[in-house]
Amino acid sequence: MIKVGIVGATGYAGAELVRILQGHPEAEIVWYGSKSYAGEAFASIYRNFFQVVESPCKSDDLKEMAKQVDVIFTATPQGYLSSIISEEILEEAKVIDLSADFRLKDVSVYEKWYGIEHKAKELIGEAVYGLDEVNREQVKKARLIANPGCYTTCSILTAYPLVKEGLIDPTTLIIDAKSGTSGAGRGAKVPNLFCEVNESIKPYGVTTHRHTPEIEEQLGYACGQEFAISFTPHLVPMNRGILATEYASLKEVKMPDGSVRKPDLAYIRSVYEKYYGKEYFVRVLPEGVMPETRWVEGSNFLDIGLAVDERCGRVIMVGAIDNLVKGAAGQAVQNMNLLFGLPENTGLTMVPLFP
Amino acid sequence: MIKVGIVGATGYAGAELVRILQGHPEAEIVWYGSKSYAGEAFASIYRNFFQVVESPCKSDDLKEMAKQVDVIFTATPQGYLSSIISEEILEEAKVIDLSADFRLKDVSVYEKWYGIEHKAKELIGEAVYGLDEVNREQVKKARLIANPGCYTTCSILTAYPLVKEGLIDPTTLIIDAKSGTSGAGRGAKVPNLFCEVNESIKPYGVTTHRHTPEIEEQLGYACGQEFAISFTPHLVPMNRGILATEYASLKEVKMPDGSVRKPDLAYIRSVYEKYYGKEYFVRVLPEGVMPETRWVEGSNFLDIGLAVDERCGRVIMVGAIDNLVKGAAGQAVQNMNLLFGLPENTGLTMVPLFP
Amino acid sequence: MIKVGIVGATGYAGAELVRILQGHPEAEIVWYGSKSYAGEAFASIYRNFFQVVESPCKSDDLKEMAKQVDVIFTATPQGYLSSIISEEILEEAKVIDLSADFRLKDVSVYEKWYGIEHKAKELIGEAVYGLDEVNREQVKKARLIANPGCYTTCSILTAYPLVKEGLIDPTTLIIDAKSGTSGAGRGAKVPNLFCEVNESIKPYGVTTHRHTPEIEEQLGYACGQEFAISFTPHLVPMNRGILATEYASLKEVKMPDGSVRKPDLAYIRSVYEKYYGKEYFVRVLPEGVMPETRWVEGSNFLDIGLAVDERCGRVIMVGAIDNLVKGAAGQAVQNMNLLFGLPENTGLTMVPLFP
Amino acid sequence: MIKVGIVGATGYAGAELVRILQGHPEAEIVWYGSKSYAGEAFASIYRNFFQVVESPCKSDDLKEMAKQVDVIFTATPQGYLSSIISEEILEEAKVIDLSADFRLKDVSVYEKWYGIEHKAKELIGEAVYGLDEVNREQVKKARLIANPGCYTTCSILTAYPLVKEGLIDPTTLIIDAKSGTSGAGRGAKVPNLFCEVNESIKPYGVTTHRHTPEIEEQLGYACGQEFAISFTPHLVPMNRGILATEYASLKEVKMPDGSVRKPDLAYIRSVYEKYYGKEYFVRVLPEGVMPETRWVEGSNFLDIGLAVDERCGRVIMVGAIDNLVKGAAGQAVQNMNLLFGLPENTGLTMVPLFP
Repeated sequence: MIKVGIVGATGYAGAELVRILQGHPEAEIVWYGSKSYAGEAFASIYRNFFQVVESPCKSDDLKEMAKQVDVIFTATPQGYLSSIISEEILEEAKVIDLSADFRLKDVSVYEKWYGIEHKAKELIGEAVYGLDEVNREQVKKARLIANPGCYTTCSILTAYPLVKEGLIDPTTLIIDAKSGTSGAGRGAKVPNLFCEVNESIKPYGVTTHRHTPEIEEQLGYACGQEFAISFTPHLVPMNRGILATEYASLKEVKMPDGSVRKPDLAYIRSVYEKYYGKEYFVRVLPEGVMPETRWVEGSNFLDIGLAVDERCGRVIMVGAIDNLVKGAAGQAVQNMNLLFGLPENTGLTMVPLFP
Repeated sequence: MIKVGIVGATGYAGAELVRILQGHPEAEIVWYGSKSYAGEAFASIYRNFFQVVESPCKSDDLKEMAKQVDVIFTATPQGYLSSIISEEILEEAKVIDLSADFRLKDVSVYEKWYGIEHKAKELIGEAVYGLDEVNREQVKKARLIANPGCYTTCSILTAYPLVKEGLIDPTTLIIDAKSGTSGAGRGAKVPNLFCEVNESIKPYGVTTHRHTPEIEEQLGYACGQEFAISFTPHLVPMNRGILATEYASLKEVKMPDGSVRKPDLAYIRSVYEKYYGKEYFVRVLPEGVMPETRWVEGSNFLDIGLAVDERCGRVIMVGAIDNLVKGAAGQAVQNMNLLFGLPENTGLTMVPLFP
Repeated sequence: MIKVGIVGATGYAGAELVRILQGHPEAEIVWYGSKSYAGEAFASIYRNFFQVVESPCKSDDLKEMAKQVDVIFTATPQGYLSSIISEEILEEAKVIDLSADFRLKDVSVYEKWYGIEHKAKELIGEAVYGLDEVNREQVKKARLIANPGCYTTCSILTAYPLVKEGLIDPTTLIIDAKSGTSGAGRGAKVPNLFCEVNESIKPYGVTTHRHTPEIEEQLGYACGQEFAISFTPHLVPMNRGILATEYASLKEVKMPDGSVRKPDLAYIRSVYEKYYGKEYFVRVLPEGVMPETRWVEGSNFLDIGLAVDERCGRVIMVGAIDNLVKGAAGQAVQNMNLLFGLPENTGLTMVPLFP
Repeated sequence: MIKVGIVGATGYAGAELVRILQGHPEAEIVWYGSKSYAGEAFASIYRNFFQVVESPCKSDDLKEMAKQVDVIFTATPQGYLSSIISEEILEEAKVIDLSADFRLKDVSVYEKWYGIEHKAKELIGEAVYGLDEVNREQVKKARLIANPGCYTTCSILTAYPLVKEGLIDPTTLIIDAKSGTSGAGRGAKVPNLFCEVNESIKPYGVTTHRHTPEIEEQLGYACGQEFAISFTPHLVPMNRGILATEYASLKEVKMPDGSVRKPDLAYIRSVYEKYYGKEYFVRVLPEGVMPETRWVEGSNFLDIGLAVDERCGRVIMVGAIDNLVKGAAGQAVQNMNLLFGLPENTGLTMVPLFP
């Protein structure tokens, strides 16, 4: 059994880790870390775990935790892990970080968008961006995993094949994303009250959301080119789910039949099939079907739908995930599975809950 | 592997059976019956099963199905099973009926409340009411299980210990119940449209709801007395969940210390502990904690909270279940497990999904 | 024009007062009091008022406000008004208090249920309980109005005719109430976050909710008898609305035809017609129709539905209001209209918003 | 008093017309037309109108209606009005059509996108597109008004100033729109059931939604150029509201200071101020503030927010309306006011309802 410690177990992502790991046959949580609730029963904070989890929350002592566990998940605010991580800890345990601390390779970009100094620059190079469908082999050998953000996971994977294959002009990429409210976390803030969120939709962080450079960096690696995108997140009155609607201009390319033209839907679909046909968690929907967040809720699936807007020469790519699963805790467990040589979907085969 | 056939697999309860059985290590669905969608891929109706269930829906041929399976679940409208069930079918396969056809022992009560003639009266006596926490031993030996209604499961089990022990006056029992909208089924009706349900709560079936006699009959067996209750269901703008708030006057009884008085909360809690302390699916919450449907969503748990209103001499019993799980498909699988000699919670240990 | 000052204008009830008074032809708000947001534009807190209300919020200086206005609405926490109210203020302006400070005549009951000392006991006697359908004439002559609570308004008026006429046994009265989330106010608390409230229903304050003694006191006046009720509120995932489902045993009484028996539905309906037939805001629904909160949203209406559960000898009375309107701001304006000799429904004829 | 007839009064848009006209001081509904509910009390279909509207629904006899009223609103499916409208009717009454029948000037575009033959081509030329902020003067003189679609109203007005002034390249315009569920109408269809819509977001009609050519035509008039846009609507789990997030590349233009460059936010805001500064219903929000649908719910306002994504050279324009008010019934009444020489906001000054 893999011994697991969680820092920040009482946030939404942390609690989702607990839920998923409860059903994992090869892992066992031995440390429920929670700064706010240390000493209280975990199941008194999340009563869904009543008579399921008997353990109390403990303090967030990362050093001590590292000695007792094989892997640490940090579901913590930005800046926490980088301020406390050390070679000593990494020698004791693998670390999978759900925060943004090690996602960006360019530390100046991190410091600009997050507005804080990075305290562990020396580890940025080593950290592996844990997007398994892209970086699977590197992940297997890593000690420190930067678990991708929720919006970024959905946004990157939805566009990845066309960016990688050079079929779209990346400078035309526009991502209009919509998220359920659990993405905002469990902090007690007026804008997240039921009456403020319910019966409304709003954009936020327009042109300034911190997942923007993360998407740009990773897609930049894919096409070998730096570029800027427009990324606009919106808050939707639902608990879970992210939907990313992505627009990009198709490039004229040499097609398999030798002609030079903008690729049609059939060809685009064949490219997605090539990239994702064997991926367990990525489901490219049948032609004409678009993703809906309800069909992935509670699961680690990413659903993708595709359309070509011929009148405009654009492709419209739509992706849907559960932000707490494929966008956070599920992907983190997927990373753990790779780190420990388990089949990638161990403990992650739960069917989406509907309705 | 237990071979399973489902009649009505494309209703909400049927689809929930599919979801649960996907995670069941000892069962395999071999027949997805659906009158409306025969010939279509099951996963094209419920896209959460895309790339999970490959099978098409088939017609509802119960006779043929019985030959191919070990157990049949019927998630069908009232009157269907009783019109088609036969000794021949029961000799081929066990039947677990999620409709009301075999729940009431008094056929005149059935015909009065449901307004239809019962076509298989000869089997009513044999059918076992599949409320396992009460009827476990009979269930194990049955061929035909009447799976209890959603409201009734929650209402009966929440009050059962006090009724059985004679601590409350059953003629004072009032059940004010609240249900999520999945209980109304997937039929296309104006009152169930999003805009009609959202941002509102309403009572319905006041004094006439069909689960009333089912509760009365079962609780009547418990106390050996016939009585009538007031039962009022309400529709709540949420997908899943039933909450039953139950009120009854406490009787003056001889207490363990010899005194004659109304039982206090501590004594009442000890009675629940006696009945449910070892039940996996019934969770009697800590003193002072009341159930919330979110803490059972997606699971087979029933959560119970208790309070004594001393100023009025009443006990207030509150129960919460997921109507599609413990109130339908989960309880049906629990029954299947008993029928086939499996541990009762096989495939039913999923943790509630929150948020 | 009546000059109006509001203390607590940036809470939900305060902002609803602003909305209603915007459409009131005879009133003008001259002081938007807000401790938290003094100095900020009211419309920057509630952007629905952008370009509608230009005024900034001011501090909560009740003395100074009293000099500048004709009537003060206090939408404040318990204990605030009683700690600051004075004869001097009441000589300058009428006061309509939306808090509980002057609702209970028995100060010991107030201090017991609210857990705070009452600082203006000398004014309790003078204060008039502003439930206009019952106390209309006293309201007209008052200086200090105790605006009833949201649950209490709905609960009392729904049962009032039968209590007053002695047709039910008040000791059997059970009120199972359900409220939208705006009733919990705009404070930033985890239990009121979207993800905590959405997709769930829960009871709270079981046997201890502070509106209990308020209902008991007022209904006690109606029947000339002290009694205790069971009152259980529930939180519903919707913004607005209260539904009260009330149960009571019918008494055997002398009927108009001379017989002694439990009244039937027709007679009960005739009693409601007698009490409410001419009330603008109370709508007794047609026989067989039950209230739904959506049909009163945004309006000052109270809808009432009635059923007799003959098998149990009980009447079931159901009432629905918008908690922020008839349960708070609308009723407060109704009181203002009476205080200033205006037609009672001035500015209050808005049709409920649906969907 | 203007005498009003409504065809399709029992759909959501029709009922919203009734709600708005109830508060209109110069109009009186004399004919509640409803094919489905003729003979039934209007208030038995929409119980919010109980004791407010006493009239029954009548059949949809447009000819007879025209004789009795001054203005007819048709809230009907596409193809209805064009199949029945006649010179005779237009001589008797003004007609404001909430369907799409007379919105598109190019009949071939209509027939292609709607898939039906247009039966009154001779009137297309006369019909005025009732977007008052653009076409105010033509509306005043019209007999037949084509009331704009909900998505189109929001989409066009949000982008109009920049298109008209030539500050953006219209061929880069992408509109990602989100709508509440009332936009889907009151038809009993499975995809609109509560459980299907709740807790999910989905795109629909990708590249094929019928509001696309309407937007293109009107914005084409603005810039004197034909172009195609990408328009993607999404369904959001809320009753009311449309949010349109619009992206376009800024053009290099000659700025007031003589320089040639892409306009900055300050200049863009000054353009919106020029166009909308005096418009009652269009509210350009303060810099840095983005629209949220909750702030316009129940009102005829359109809120607009603006941002420049300098890294990409794009402007992001966001608009929010209540789809049933500014997107349907409210705009229709605004048109009626213009037709009859009333101040444009007569009966339309209601403040948005929040929460």
